[in-house]
Amino acid sequence: MTDTVEINECFGRDGLQHESVFLSTDDKVELLDAFVAAGFQRIEATSYSHPKHVPAFADASDLLKKIERHPGVRFKATCPNQKAVERALADYREGYGAEELSLLTSASESHSQKNLHSSKDTQWQRVREMIELADGKFQLVGVVSVAFGCPFEGKIDPNVVLADIERFRELDVDVITIGDTTGLADPVSVQKLFRELTANDPDFPYVAHFHDTRGAGIANSYAAYEAGCRRFDGALGGVGGHPAQITYGAGMTGNVATEDLVNFFESMGVSTGLNLDALSQASELCEQKLGRELNSKVARSGYTRELL
Amino acid sequence: MTDTVEINECFGRDGLQHESVFLSTDDKVELLDAFVAAGFQRIEATSYSHPKHVPAFADASDLLKKIERHPGVRFKATCPNQKAVERALADYREGYGAEELSLLTSASESHSQKNLHSSKDTQWQRVREMIELADGKFQLVGVVSVAFGCPFEGKIDPNVVLADIERFRELDVDVITIGDTTGLADPVSVQKLFRELTANDPDFPYVAHFHDTRGAGIANSYAAYEAGCRRFDGALGGVGGHPAQITYGAGMTGNVATEDLVNFFESMGVSTGLNLDALSQASELCEQKLGRELNSKVARSGYTRELL
Repeated sequence: MTDTVEINECFGRDGLQHESVFLSTDDKVELLDAFVAAGFQRIEATSYSHPKHVPAFADASDLLKKIERHPGVRFKATCPNQKAVERALADYREGYGAEELSLLTSASESHSQKNLHSSKDTQWQRVREMIELADGKFQLVGVVSVAFGCPFEGKIDPNVVLADIERFRELDVDVITIGDTTGLADPVSVQKLFRELTANDPDFPYVAHFHDTRGAGIANSYAAYEAGCRRFDGALGGVGGHPAQITYGAGMTGNVATEDLVNFFESMGVSTGLNLDALSQASELCEQKLGRELNSKVARSGYTRELL
Repeated sequence: MTDTVEINECFGRDGLQHESVFLSTDDKVELLDAFVAAGFQRIEATSYSHPKHVPAFADASDLLKKIERHPGVRFKATCPNQKAVERALADYREGYGAEELSLLTSASESHSQKNLHSSKDTQWQRVREMIELADGKFQLVGVVSVAFGCPFEGKIDPNVVLADIERFRELDVDVITIGDTTGLADPVSVQKLFRELTANDPDFPYVAHFHDTRGAGIANSYAAYEAGCRRFDGALGGVGGHPAQITYGAGMTGNVATEDLVNFFESMGVSTGLNLDALSQASELCEQKLGRELNSKVARSGYTRELL
């Protein structure tokens, strides 16, 4: 097999979002440099969330000013609302804007209310305004959260998800990320959705974003891969997610661990284009900065290629 | 989908094998009762390993004497050699024999040497003698360890594995377990092997035994399922495996966590026939007896069905 996949590193944003440890801007710079060294081309750097809601990203502009940029590497900043895009534009005008902005939506009404503090309708109106405001200055990533199930509402009609994805297509975003925000996807639902998406438009960059809340994150990534998806999100050390005690009750584990996801694809002969030694160093740095052992199994056991 | 799979519970043997906590025979009885209550029909109970090599199973006969038997439930005892089968026969004659014996082999020469203290040839000679000795008194399970890669030798020629499986078929064992003992399988190698096996004989009970050493255990189970396999091993809490410091260097994590594997299949509409509430109780009991939080993610986050 000579297939390739693109792995995006989410440690810097989805990963750090609910960490109790505050990393300094310099620590974040060091981490993002390590991710670049490992060969990631799309890297979540920060969020323009209001510092009151997510204090971890209060240094968004400062961080974007400090990180070294590299041709072919896109740093992403998350934007929940218009104010966030205004901050992104201000940084852009100063010469250090993020290469990508992600625009958040939720497939369910109640997740939209709890996570974005607005109805779905209001949020989609905001998304339209955010896109207009962004004025073509950034690559835009449309995000559909809780696409495979909502911790508040339960089942999500796949047609609702397809309609949300279609709205992003009509708004002409560059990338669409489909998020299994609390680990409720299964291979059947994953394959159904991604087969439909890739059948309609095999070349559009859809990204599969799985959380490993119930241990199925890599299996679901594989199911998406089988259905034609070639872009995946992961977070080093499997950090991130929404711990029950902080936002809502859906378990303690976070994103699929990038180390394990990368090893998984490489072990089956699918190239990630990453430097595995540099990836291990980045993995160690993540543990060092957070001051604890994280959740990657490969970080403990080593890559398959070391033995086979 | 109305498909079904059979999940076998390995906590009692593969799980406990390298635990530093010694469980009393009464604790083990309580655990095995809980596994029966959850609906498992094949349950690893103990091993007739020499108590010097594996002290955890010094109470094998006493345990088998104490556990209540149930129609349709087969308790398994592991047999590394003829002496073990002799002990199994003695227990059988006393009226409390295990319903199943498993006969261990390794796909690689060096794993055979290190794990079974004999060459492959010698071990296969032993297996023949063990089967003769067992004299039709037990269901026999042939086990091929390190079938997808060896921590000492690396790649394993799939034809060697197929030849080993064929030897077990010729010896007329009742079940054959294919073990990814240190988590080196990938979906491509898994599908190739299981497609070949199920194409040749779709009804023979092959069991896929994956370890989650590199986080791919559930993805590999799914790959085997896709290739026609319908029988899977798991250990509650994901215990077991071969911690680097005890036997050989292949990581700290063990078997696929039964809770997560069961939830995975159930979430995709594949019935395991298990009682999920009783499974949760068994899972809690395992943590209680070992005195620590184990590695199942579902034990922390809950089943998918609680939300969808």
